[in-house]
Amino acid sequence: MRILGIDPGSIKCGYGLIEATTPNPSLFYLSSGRIILSARKPLHIRLQELYTSLIDVISEYKPDEIVIEKIFFAKSVRVALSLGHTRGVVLLAASLTGIPIYEYSALEVKKAVVGYGRADKNQVQKLVKEILNIKHLLSSDSADAIALAICHANTKQIQHPSPIYRFTKQI
Amino acid sequence: MRILGIDPGSIKCGYGLIEATTPNPSLFYLSSGRIILSARKPLHIRLQELYTSLIDVISEYKPDEIVIEKIFFAKSVRVALSLGHTRGVVLLAASLTGIPIYEYSALEVKKAVVGYGRADKNQVQKLVKEILNIKHLLSSDSADAIALAICHANTKQIQHPSPIYRFTKQI
Repeated sequence: MRILGIDPGSIKCGYGLIEATTPNPSLFYLSSGRIILSARKPLHIRLQELYTSLIDVISEYKPDEIVIEKIFFAKSVRVALSLGHTRGVVLLAASLTGIPIYEYSALEVKKAVVGYGRADKNQVQKLVKEILNIKHLLSSDSADAIALAICHANTKQIQHPSPIYRFTKQI
Repeated sequence: MRILGIDPGSIKCGYGLIEATTPNPSLFYLSSGRIILSARKPLHIRLQELYTSLIDVISEYKPDEIVIEKIFFAKSVRVALSLGHTRGVVLLAASLTGIPIYEYSALEVKKAVVGYGRADKNQVQKLVKEILNIKHLLSSDSADAIALAICHANTKQIQHPSPIYRFTKQI
């Protein structure tokens, strides 16, 4: 099963694809990246570029499930509006593909990946690289997106008696 | 010139179509309505339904220009996130049609339609009905959307020496 995590930000939108095998659960890193929204362009153009890029990513990777970060908090109303615009487009793009969508909050993701909900970005990045045996550089946006996918795989696999993760495959 | 105003709300999204003739500026009411987002459905399904409905409205009315409310404020971060989701999808749907998009704040719209920025919803509704000679019931969401279109027509026609509005046609 291919799981695509998407971390919607108002300037950078990270994504990460992993493969979770069943019934013997193993996680493999497949790919990741980020879509950067040019602050110089009008908002509707930025959102259109985000939408087009997301549709391209989903068409290329053909995930079985998509995981998007749930957002409850923001520094201010202005930031919340900006994040809301991006997240609305991400949810729409995913929804239009017909692929099942799952949502987890940052707290749930950090608990699932690092072990506690107050972990910082560097810890998430480090743990994601360790869990999936990623040797190359990984932006924090991509790491957050991959962490969403890991959290989902982990949550789904809770029913299994002994989840063992092996981390070798990379494309 | 057909102008479509869209007032993005997190539960109800109003729209209103007017015709503004040039060079002798007159405004005519053409149509209006609102898209109601079912609170019972998952957010991504609501956003997809909003998107599909908006694309249908734009395809049917074929406006020359689209006007969308600019939002700076919200009661809380939670409300701002919710409004942002809707507005992101509205901006995307409009942008994908390739029709020029214009944005005005509620303050600018109230100033243009009622004459002062602190007018309430009832005053906007009343003035919109008077300006366009609308005899039937008009929801405040639709009135706000039509007010956006009037504001745009008015702002564009500021260069004209004496804007006179005649308000008879209705479909």
